[in-house]
Amino acid sequence: MAPAYFTSLFKQSLTPDALRAYLAEFISTFFYVFAVVGSAMASRKLMSDSATDPSSLVLVAVANTFALSSAVYMAANVSGGHVNPAVTFGMAVGGHISVSTALFYWVSQMSASVVACLLLKVATVSQDVPIYRIANEMTGLGASLVEGVVAFGLVYGVYAGPLRSIGPVAIGVMGGAMVLAAGPFSGGAMNPALAFGSAVVAGRFKNQAVYWVGPFIGAAVAGLVYDNVVFPGRRVNSDGV
Amino acid sequence: MAPAYFTSLFKQSLTPDALRAYLAEFISTFFYVFAVVGSAMASRKLMSDSATDPSSLVLVAVANTFALSSAVYMAANVSGGHVNPAVTFGMAVGGHISVSTALFYWVSQMSASVVACLLLKVATVSQDVPIYRIANEMTGLGASLVEGVVAFGLVYGVYAGPLRSIGPVAIGVMGGAMVLAAGPFSGGAMNPALAFGSAVVAGRFKNQAVYWVGPFIGAAVAGLVYDNVVFPGRRVNSDGV
Amino acid sequence: MAPAYFTSLFKQSLTPDALRAYLAEFISTFFYVFAVVGSAMASRKLMSDSATDPSSLVLVAVANTFALSSAVYMAANVSGGHVNPAVTFGMAVGGHISVSTALFYWVSQMSASVVACLLLKVATVSQDVPIYRIANEMTGLGASLVEGVVAFGLVYGVYAGPLRSIGPVAIGVMGGAMVLAAGPFSGGAMNPALAFGSAVVAGRFKNQAVYWVGPFIGAAVAGLVYDNVVFPGRRVNSDGV
Amino acid sequence: MAPAYFTSLFKQSLTPDALRAYLAEFISTFFYVFAVVGSAMASRKLMSDSATDPSSLVLVAVANTFALSSAVYMAANVSGGHVNPAVTFGMAVGGHISVSTALFYWVSQMSASVVACLLLKVATVSQDVPIYRIANEMTGLGASLVEGVVAFGLVYGVYAGPLRSIGPVAIGVMGGAMVLAAGPFSGGAMNPALAFGSAVVAGRFKNQAVYWVGPFIGAAVAGLVYDNVVFPGRRVNSDGV
Repeated sequence: MAPAYFTSLFKQSLTPDALRAYLAEFISTFFYVFAVVGSAMASRKLMSDSATDPSSLVLVAVANTFALSSAVYMAANVSGGHVNPAVTFGMAVGGHISVSTALFYWVSQMSASVVACLLLKVATVSQDVPIYRIANEMTGLGASLVEGVVAFGLVYGVYAGPLRSIGPVAIGVMGGAMVLAAGPFSGGAMNPALAFGSAVVAGRFKNQAVYWVGPFIGAAVAGLVYDNVVFPGRRVNSDGV
Repeated sequence: MAPAYFTSLFKQSLTPDALRAYLAEFISTFFYVFAVVGSAMASRKLMSDSATDPSSLVLVAVANTFALSSAVYMAANVSGGHVNPAVTFGMAVGGHISVSTALFYWVSQMSASVVACLLLKVATVSQDVPIYRIANEMTGLGASLVEGVVAFGLVYGVYAGPLRSIGPVAIGVMGGAMVLAAGPFSGGAMNPALAFGSAVVAGRFKNQAVYWVGPFIGAAVAGLVYDNVVFPGRRVNSDGV
Repeated sequence: MAPAYFTSLFKQSLTPDALRAYLAEFISTFFYVFAVVGSAMASRKLMSDSATDPSSLVLVAVANTFALSSAVYMAANVSGGHVNPAVTFGMAVGGHISVSTALFYWVSQMSASVVACLLLKVATVSQDVPIYRIANEMTGLGASLVEGVVAFGLVYGVYAGPLRSIGPVAIGVMGGAMVLAAGPFSGGAMNPALAFGSAVVAGRFKNQAVYWVGPFIGAAVAGLVYDNVVFPGRRVNSDGV
Repeated sequence: MAPAYFTSLFKQSLTPDALRAYLAEFISTFFYVFAVVGSAMASRKLMSDSATDPSSLVLVAVANTFALSSAVYMAANVSGGHVNPAVTFGMAVGGHISVSTALFYWVSQMSASVVACLLLKVATVSQDVPIYRIANEMTGLGASLVEGVVAFGLVYGVYAGPLRSIGPVAIGVMGGAMVLAAGPFSGGAMNPALAFGSAVVAGRFKNQAVYWVGPFIGAAVAGLVYDNVVFPGRRVNSDGV
């Protein structure tokens, strides 16, 4: 843990290829958050009681599927298409990217989310940015459990296949299915960066822990299960750097 | 049928590869059921009269499509991505997996379904888990016929193509199309494990036979037709073990 | 045009491979019609005024997309995945299949449609099978024009690419887009077999010409344009026999 | 800039291959506009207050996704599947097509859009063609910013991958996600040809600048960023001519 260790570690995380990967994560996460939060704002603009309408849930879930598929697709060749700090955590736990690279991924993802939410607020002349919240009757533990299961599925899906073919679509539809199932209960963020960006711009951080603890545990378990039990020795080619 | 026969049979079904296949079936079926039953619960939470709203049917059908595509995709390379006892039965009838392996697949799929429904019940603080039921005006025979046709389509789709490319998406959209057509009539379970898991957790087993007899007959016919008539001699690579 | 000519022509259309192609067309068209007509019945069951609800249009269009994608996918390797007499006509005009083979394709597609509609009527205890109809304010010519444009798009899509990769999905989404655009105006059948089967079972043949004349002209034009102008000399591999 | 220069430039843009590319752009753009504008007309026909219903937004976004995926797919091998003057502009800025070819692309795309809107008006017996408009509370600058971000995403997606595999679907879902996010705010045209065609047929040109300035700037930035920063030196194979 000497300074030299850190220097070499960060040097490896600051190559031109690594910098490109951070930019790709930034751009893809930006579009993902722009579409997901934007569609929630659109739904709310169309209907004041949109939180209680199945059409609105379909709208947000479809936006999630479409946006996640294209975001993963756009970044797949450059950064591995994580667009989600929990996925990056799962990859780091599995040893597919280094901790220092993961830190830069996180900074890219979270800053992209904040910028996307800010831009939505500015462009819509200060309309409220919706935050993720859990249903009244849910406990924090139950919601965290649901978010953890959802993140497990997402990370497991990233591990399950190469991203060259239909991988991005398979991951996108997994995300959409999870939003349809979890949305009205735990919020269905699945993505700490998404919950973080909207919370920063809205200035409310209630229940944030739910969107970090659950997904990180779920992601770590998914990485460990896939790497060591389901497909030991399989090369994961979603490690972008 | 001597003990030695069973011993060798089960030995072949308990290799590390086979165990991995059962785990993959468990995980994929878990996520499939989690998304499908969860989305039905979400739809009911949003609207008390959701059973009579086209948006709710779209919601559940889209969840089915998304969840089935990703579940098949995630397990395709490991177990063949059945996630459905009727599909496993169709594969066993066609001779693509052994009977003992099929038994382990069934145990994996059904236990995964029960665990997914239990987790949904616990996480949502004991909200009711919806069960599959047939419409009032339908007879058990008519509903079983519809479920059988639906299962025929699903198994035929699994046979029709390799799962490496868009196969999982083609199977998922087949499932969604069938839910849109059959949902308000026979329930549109298509999957005995799905009907079983929700019935166990809800404690009501009415109409269960509809979701077992029809799909198993449909699946067996699909396997026989495809293997012997449409494409005799074609190698099916969805036999995971 | 001697008997010997016909004998040799039909001999070529009655090889085992050709018979398999007809069976594949029958099965795929059956499922396509089952899902499309079934979803229209489901939508009507859920909502008596479903013809005036955007959710119902989305429901039917999504069913069309899902069912067409999977029907084309399931038959692609065996018959070319036409599942539509207009597509078969376009292929015959372009010289990709013989006229006698086209006749057998038509018989397979139309009988499959009738059987699917009959089965829906029987299984749902004689619920009405909806027929395709044009909007009150539309003229037959306008509706035929719209249906022709829609069929042009569909056939052009079949010509545009090989069906091994995402072709079936691209054709399915084209169909869904066309239903969303044309549904409330011309009915959006796009497929004479679909209009024919539901008309036979319902016993009403009003506006049938709209669903035959327009699509056949559109399909022929699409075949000629693609083959001779856009991509002269390109081998079309959707000629199954 | 001598006449000889123009002659040689245009000669290169008038080869048989180039003419085929313009025809492919015309046909694909025609179907894209037909489906998107037609679905908006269908939605309005079904519901007079469709502008305030989430189902209608889902309907139009799904039509956009389906139509864009299939339009890009159909033209991918011939013209690169732009179907959007902003995408063509981004390709010209990146040096992937010449300025004179881009001009012909634009003429093809814009005339296709006008013809599609005219045909819809004629076929539906003069029903109003809806135009793109920005929400009352939005400023022109804000709307242009949103449209620019949306076009950036679209062009970036075209650059990100080859169109042979799932590229067209990834671009289509990006488009749908953007409509869901931007629709109720800036209109979500993403495509100057789309806004132009409906404005010509409706005879109202208000806010046209929003749909040209924003997308062109966004497209140019996307082309420059991808070519020079994210993936310098990568061959883009969406240059059709």
